[in-house]
Amino acid sequence: MSGRSWVVVLMVLMVLSLMEVRSAGPYEPTWESIDARPLPEWFDQAKFGIFIHWGVFSVPSFGSEWFWWYWQKQQLQPYVDFMRSNYPPGFTYQDFAPQFTAEFFDAKEWVDIFASSGAKYIVMTTKHHEGFTLWGSKTSWNWNAVDVGPKRDLVAEVVDALRAKGGLRLGLYHSLFEWFNPLYLKDAAGGYNTSYFPAAKTLPELYDLVARYRPEVLWSDGDGDAPDSYWNSTGFLAWLYNDSPVRDTVVTNDRWGLGTICNHGGYYTCADRYLPGQLPARKWENCMTIDRKSWGYRRNAQLKDFLTIEQLITTLVQTVALGGNLLMNVGPTHEGVIPPIFQERLGQVGGWLAVNGEAIYHTTPWRAQNDSLTPHVWYTYGPQKKAVYAILLDWPDSGAVVLGEPLALGSGATQVELLGYGPLPWRSREPSGVSVQLPPLTINQMPCQWAWALRLTGVA
Amino acid sequence: MSGRSWVVVLMVLMVLSLMEVRSAGPYEPTWESIDARPLPEWFDQAKFGIFIHWGVFSVPSFGSEWFWWYWQKQQLQPYVDFMRSNYPPGFTYQDFAPQFTAEFFDAKEWVDIFASSGAKYIVMTTKHHEGFTLWGSKTSWNWNAVDVGPKRDLVAEVVDALRAKGGLRLGLYHSLFEWFNPLYLKDAAGGYNTSYFPAAKTLPELYDLVARYRPEVLWSDGDGDAPDSYWNSTGFLAWLYNDSPVRDTVVTNDRWGLGTICNHGGYYTCADRYLPGQLPARKWENCMTIDRKSWGYRRNAQLKDFLTIEQLITTLVQTVALGGNLLMNVGPTHEGVIPPIFQERLGQVGGWLAVNGEAIYHTTPWRAQNDSLTPHVWYTYGPQKKAVYAILLDWPDSGAVVLGEPLALGSGATQVELLGYGPLPWRSREPSGVSVQLPPLTINQMPCQWAWALRLTGVA
Amino acid sequence: MSGRSWVVVLMVLMVLSLMEVRSAGPYEPTWESIDARPLPEWFDQAKFGIFIHWGVFSVPSFGSEWFWWYWQKQQLQPYVDFMRSNYPPGFTYQDFAPQFTAEFFDAKEWVDIFASSGAKYIVMTTKHHEGFTLWGSKTSWNWNAVDVGPKRDLVAEVVDALRAKGGLRLGLYHSLFEWFNPLYLKDAAGGYNTSYFPAAKTLPELYDLVARYRPEVLWSDGDGDAPDSYWNSTGFLAWLYNDSPVRDTVVTNDRWGLGTICNHGGYYTCADRYLPGQLPARKWENCMTIDRKSWGYRRNAQLKDFLTIEQLITTLVQTVALGGNLLMNVGPTHEGVIPPIFQERLGQVGGWLAVNGEAIYHTTPWRAQNDSLTPHVWYTYGPQKKAVYAILLDWPDSGAVVLGEPLALGSGATQVELLGYGPLPWRSREPSGVSVQLPPLTINQMPCQWAWALRLTGVA
Amino acid sequence: MSGRSWVVVLMVLMVLSLMEVRSAGPYEPTWESIDARPLPEWFDQAKFGIFIHWGVFSVPSFGSEWFWWYWQKQQLQPYVDFMRSNYPPGFTYQDFAPQFTAEFFDAKEWVDIFASSGAKYIVMTTKHHEGFTLWGSKTSWNWNAVDVGPKRDLVAEVVDALRAKGGLRLGLYHSLFEWFNPLYLKDAAGGYNTSYFPAAKTLPELYDLVARYRPEVLWSDGDGDAPDSYWNSTGFLAWLYNDSPVRDTVVTNDRWGLGTICNHGGYYTCADRYLPGQLPARKWENCMTIDRKSWGYRRNAQLKDFLTIEQLITTLVQTVALGGNLLMNVGPTHEGVIPPIFQERLGQVGGWLAVNGEAIYHTTPWRAQNDSLTPHVWYTYGPQKKAVYAILLDWPDSGAVVLGEPLALGSGATQVELLGYGPLPWRSREPSGVSVQLPPLTINQMPCQWAWALRLTGVA
Repeated sequence: MSGRSWVVVLMVLMVLSLMEVRSAGPYEPTWESIDARPLPEWFDQAKFGIFIHWGVFSVPSFGSEWFWWYWQKQQLQPYVDFMRSNYPPGFTYQDFAPQFTAEFFDAKEWVDIFASSGAKYIVMTTKHHEGFTLWGSKTSWNWNAVDVGPKRDLVAEVVDALRAKGGLRLGLYHSLFEWFNPLYLKDAAGGYNTSYFPAAKTLPELYDLVARYRPEVLWSDGDGDAPDSYWNSTGFLAWLYNDSPVRDTVVTNDRWGLGTICNHGGYYTCADRYLPGQLPARKWENCMTIDRKSWGYRRNAQLKDFLTIEQLITTLVQTVALGGNLLMNVGPTHEGVIPPIFQERLGQVGGWLAVNGEAIYHTTPWRAQNDSLTPHVWYTYGPQKKAVYAILLDWPDSGAVVLGEPLALGSGATQVELLGYGPLPWRSREPSGVSVQLPPLTINQMPCQWAWALRLTGVA
Repeated sequence: MSGRSWVVVLMVLMVLSLMEVRSAGPYEPTWESIDARPLPEWFDQAKFGIFIHWGVFSVPSFGSEWFWWYWQKQQLQPYVDFMRSNYPPGFTYQDFAPQFTAEFFDAKEWVDIFASSGAKYIVMTTKHHEGFTLWGSKTSWNWNAVDVGPKRDLVAEVVDALRAKGGLRLGLYHSLFEWFNPLYLKDAAGGYNTSYFPAAKTLPELYDLVARYRPEVLWSDGDGDAPDSYWNSTGFLAWLYNDSPVRDTVVTNDRWGLGTICNHGGYYTCADRYLPGQLPARKWENCMTIDRKSWGYRRNAQLKDFLTIEQLITTLVQTVALGGNLLMNVGPTHEGVIPPIFQERLGQVGGWLAVNGEAIYHTTPWRAQNDSLTPHVWYTYGPQKKAVYAILLDWPDSGAVVLGEPLALGSGATQVELLGYGPLPWRSREPSGVSVQLPPLTINQMPCQWAWALRLTGVA
Repeated sequence: MSGRSWVVVLMVLMVLSLMEVRSAGPYEPTWESIDARPLPEWFDQAKFGIFIHWGVFSVPSFGSEWFWWYWQKQQLQPYVDFMRSNYPPGFTYQDFAPQFTAEFFDAKEWVDIFASSGAKYIVMTTKHHEGFTLWGSKTSWNWNAVDVGPKRDLVAEVVDALRAKGGLRLGLYHSLFEWFNPLYLKDAAGGYNTSYFPAAKTLPELYDLVARYRPEVLWSDGDGDAPDSYWNSTGFLAWLYNDSPVRDTVVTNDRWGLGTICNHGGYYTCADRYLPGQLPARKWENCMTIDRKSWGYRRNAQLKDFLTIEQLITTLVQTVALGGNLLMNVGPTHEGVIPPIFQERLGQVGGWLAVNGEAIYHTTPWRAQNDSLTPHVWYTYGPQKKAVYAILLDWPDSGAVVLGEPLALGSGATQVELLGYGPLPWRSREPSGVSVQLPPLTINQMPCQWAWALRLTGVA
Repeated sequence: MSGRSWVVVLMVLMVLSLMEVRSAGPYEPTWESIDARPLPEWFDQAKFGIFIHWGVFSVPSFGSEWFWWYWQKQQLQPYVDFMRSNYPPGFTYQDFAPQFTAEFFDAKEWVDIFASSGAKYIVMTTKHHEGFTLWGSKTSWNWNAVDVGPKRDLVAEVVDALRAKGGLRLGLYHSLFEWFNPLYLKDAAGGYNTSYFPAAKTLPELYDLVARYRPEVLWSDGDGDAPDSYWNSTGFLAWLYNDSPVRDTVVTNDRWGLGTICNHGGYYTCADRYLPGQLPARKWENCMTIDRKSWGYRRNAQLKDFLTIEQLITTLVQTVALGGNLLMNVGPTHEGVIPPIFQERLGQVGGWLAVNGEAIYHTTPWRAQNDSLTPHVWYTYGPQKKAVYAILLDWPDSGAVVLGEPLALGSGATQVELLGYGPLPWRSREPSGVSVQLPPLTINQMPCQWAWALRLTGVA
């Protein structure tokens, strides 16, 4: 082969590799092809997002956002009793919709709250299993937020405020099925051999959502018992990845039909509040709630139902150390307010991230996820600074911490620093590990509370 | 051709002619074929039906059943003011639906009222232009009477009570378009070159109505600006006439697409409150209202807004004399009550028909529709008794009435009788006509009030 | 005694007698004195009034204006069931008040309707046993129509419209007790030995009503088990008759405390729908309802529940013949509308009175109340024309009526006339009575329907 | 006088003086006498109470518990706009009452929350200026929580739960005037020369409250422009102190009529959020709010509107150092929930008091209220342990604190201890003061956060 040929070959390879950087497309409507798409980088770098569950369920705001199902289908006693005690006979779930008033909803305020938490993206329910769309869907007439209740396009307002503010990416949650939609029930009764419902509702709305709002996370849910072929999930995803306006940056999850969860799609969610014991092979996300009992707002929630800031920081640190993103859920009221207790927790996380963000954002898992000697120490790795971050969930009473995992490359090369404070003395341990001396700080001098990050450079 | 061949040919012709007696079908999906279908006989014989306008518009029950349109689209001042004065800002038409309570609705009571009027059929709105279905349509989720408001299948209850009672045929009103359905608006905006709306809503619901309730009148309305091809009207009608469970007895009207009214379909309605000046060529119906201002109930209607019994009897007599059916409308309340003033008028008509039904039911137009000499005298013809009925809207002060049209066949052959009373003396007039002597009855002796029917036999 | 003295004595007696014409006052707060007051003349001359029952009970408008009592105190099943089926648990009667909206209430329209009936006075509930005042009573804070519900002074609006129109006198209904007022219950529990309730509520409101609206009928009701001394009825009445702004023209009834009914006060009511068998000694009133089942509006009333016009005219004629006034009740809706069926009946009565008022207004009972020979003939006497009126509830088939009671004074002196028509031939009967020939009128020629009045002059 | 007589006189005087130990009663209805009553000891020892503002204002829960006044009387723009945007025209404040549902109200839960804060008493609004009573007052018919809204005696439920739990004393807030009560307005219009309102409402309700619930704080408010003579305040207080069932333990405040505040009555409140610059002569109370903008709940409150725990602890420490009690307000929702953000703050205070209660409860002001050398150090004095408490609002970065005020009595006699930790080294300073060495505690070792108390014994 002549030199010139080599040049051509190399150029072709370069072009191909450049293309691959962005995408392995065009994608076929098969899981094999869809699954092969590289995850757009921004998502792994973002680490922390806010989940927002809002809908007609925010009106009863009792028990759970699964209110309708628990009450009418499962007929769970607390729900049946609640309705019997507080509403006239014959009151239906649909009758709650006019009370979804959103009179205090100010999307700018919401976005400020989200930004103050240090989150890099949000995921908002555009339509939960109840089928009520928070935007003016043409195929959800009189069961959407523009026709009934708020009489506003809630999705559009959040999108606009988010883009005006900058710094946060948009994610949209969408439930494939709708518990009580008669077309869905008809398909279901026939074993999903007909597709009245996806054709009339799900697919038009999915395309509409993407075209209107250009989300960069499309958070699919509610696959129920129906196979992905019923939903035409691969067909839709191929379009989303090849031809949609967000084809370059959009990420999706793994809830696209029976059996796809933890198996196919974009990143994995696997289960609600998923926190694996070991480093998973594929990018994943831990979606969880501050109110431990519900995703939707509960009017009668008590303080003890909310996770403490210590628990939230612990979850964030563990999730990121294990390669996941954390998607932390808040439930606004039917009036459109994010209750102060949520604001308090989000602000606390944001304060912590203001000091320790370097150990979270843009990191990757390190070779060890947590320390082998000292409990409650978790690791992340910052490629840019080639730094290992050891995050201590406890401040040691002894004033010193022993890290069993890092291997110091040498006293000249190795440095240890407490984020928000400065360099710390350390020494190597035998056979491995380093021992770090923490400074005797008073409470006022501490750079932060709840967890502390040590940046180790020059370690292996 | 052999004799045997002739026999076969004749048998075939006989079979065909027998089939034609009932119907010229099978029908093609063309107007030429549809229009050629003979009208099932019962309809012309029935003469008198009750129209019922009930829907979400019965909640505001202000102004008109076109409330939504007048308020939101035309923004007529009285409607805008009514809403501004009585409802919070942002209250939508959809918000009325939960107040459509129907708590006093008793279909059996309704049917008794209808029967007492002497009507032979009813026509009930199953879905007006608002799109709200009074039955549990699967393609109208959360905008139907089973999901919202009454939480009952109002159509089914009426149908069941009607059939249990007997004597009245079922008619169902159905609006093709829906003012504000986004799918319809989308099709309309594109000049009806797409058919999202008929495919997703109109046609499934039409088939559903016929299959579920087997109406014998299908009263189509709301064709708007869309051509019948958009609605696939001829296709549906061909099915209705050929294959539906009511193919032998169902009648339809003429509102099946732009330009069809008074032109194509079943019998003609031509216009609301249609009362032609001369005998039309095709069977027609005069649909009109007792509350002269509205089809839907109006909470603030005053007595002067209601037609008097004299006006109603006059309209009935003229309509039947001119070959039409009268479809007299009542508007029930959102609670499900037919207000007493409607009951009073219906009962009065029923009382009159109890005496004079012979001059109305099963009649046909006579050669003259009204008398040429004496005003306010209208004619019908009873084929069974070969009787001409002269219906007097005034009782003559003179005690005698001169009928200019009938030609007496002779004193032996000719008889004149006052319905509810008995034979009357008469004499021929020259060159034509008969003069009839009425009896000097006191008010208590009168067989009825408001109008009186003379049966003339042996006249030409 | 000189002639001159006699003149003086006679003049004194004349003055005294003139004074007595108006009033025997000043009145003492004793029944003896109160009962002795002559009834202001206008009342006996008026004969016909309209009763209006309106209040919070017009909201449920179910069963009866005694809704609250039947539901909560007696717990009658239909009421308990109605509430259970249509309202949430814990819904109270007070919760109905905000729905008393009166949005269509137009007092001018009401007064026109009343005037068209031929009534000469109205009596409006200002406060029924529920305690809710239809005017802005200072001692009924937040339980009156200005604070809650209509937010209008309904009494003032009716009063103003009535006076602007002219021709109708104002009557106000007022219930002494209030079923569930805790102060009343407290007094009742103690055997009415305390007077917290009359002092705090009843008496201030009675004085307030008279001072604000100057009623000419004060229609007291709801004396319950409490003696008149508890209510201080004679004290109040002495003030009303001596010192109030309406002392010269006001009339009251007989419901002023346990045992007063049919016994003490102004005119007698004795019982609801009271119609005595013989001429009572004291002026009385027959208060009755067009809806035979209720005084308050019932949303689910059926036509058969309403008295026919024949029944109403019969009741009016009998009542007046027996010396009573007729107080005919209508129940407006919570929206402020007098339903058309009531308007129809009132207009029919008005039409009849337009022809026959001479036989009703300003009459007195005659020596015979009804005829001894011919049934359904009732008599009144017109002092001004010295005319006896024989009111025929049936038009005789024979064309002639025999009146057994009148004694013709002679063919020159005696005249018989059909009101609305003219003189009729008559002849005396032996030993007494007259026989009157009625004209052979066609139905259109009749001066009126339902009953006919003969004016006999020159009879004894 | 004989010697024996003197003995008797002396004995009488002794008895009287013994009686005076407890109380200077019997009290005359004069301020001189009322003011002279010694404050029952428990109140000064309690130091910390919870104020609860609950009422109809909790329904709009917008702006302030003065909603009605600001909206209707002052017509402040935000309130007018809020109503215009969200409610129909003519909606009144009274219309909010049915929505005061309290469906999640659980008094036991509330009391647990209060107890967890370390509070020793509560003060609950039984009736705010709106006049709506939270108990079933007989003189507030249909404007109380038993008749309308919750349909429960909210006061009784709290009282019962409080007594079942133990450890907290009951205080009841009561507003003398009612903004819009027509009887009050009538008296006011006449310059308070009549007393219709106190006679009919205020006084019966005050006596009723004391008799029913036996409060140990009667927190009077809303004296308006009316003099105490109008309210008969001294008369009522004399009864309360002499004859009521709580005469021995009840305390009251100083809001009993125009000019009494900070001048007459029981302890002084002087102003809302009162925090004097120097030690006042008389016992006082600082009533303040966690939501800095409102006493009543606000649905749209943001986190930044709530005081931080640092601010709350600072206020508590300063208030107690200056001899006051702190009454910290929470606003429950109309559903009956104490929002989690309030629970969080109360729990944080409770956690702090669990460590530092010794420096708060049962203390008295010391000779110095705060330190003369080191800022943010406040003093209290514990008589039982003869201990001076120096409460540090900052933890010194230097690890040592110099207290300028205490004078050490000698190294043997004097001891310094950090509450929750143990003894600390100290040394005297010249000319006065002591210098205390604080321990080098890590954040986890700290006995508490936000403020730290040093117990100094053997100091002067």
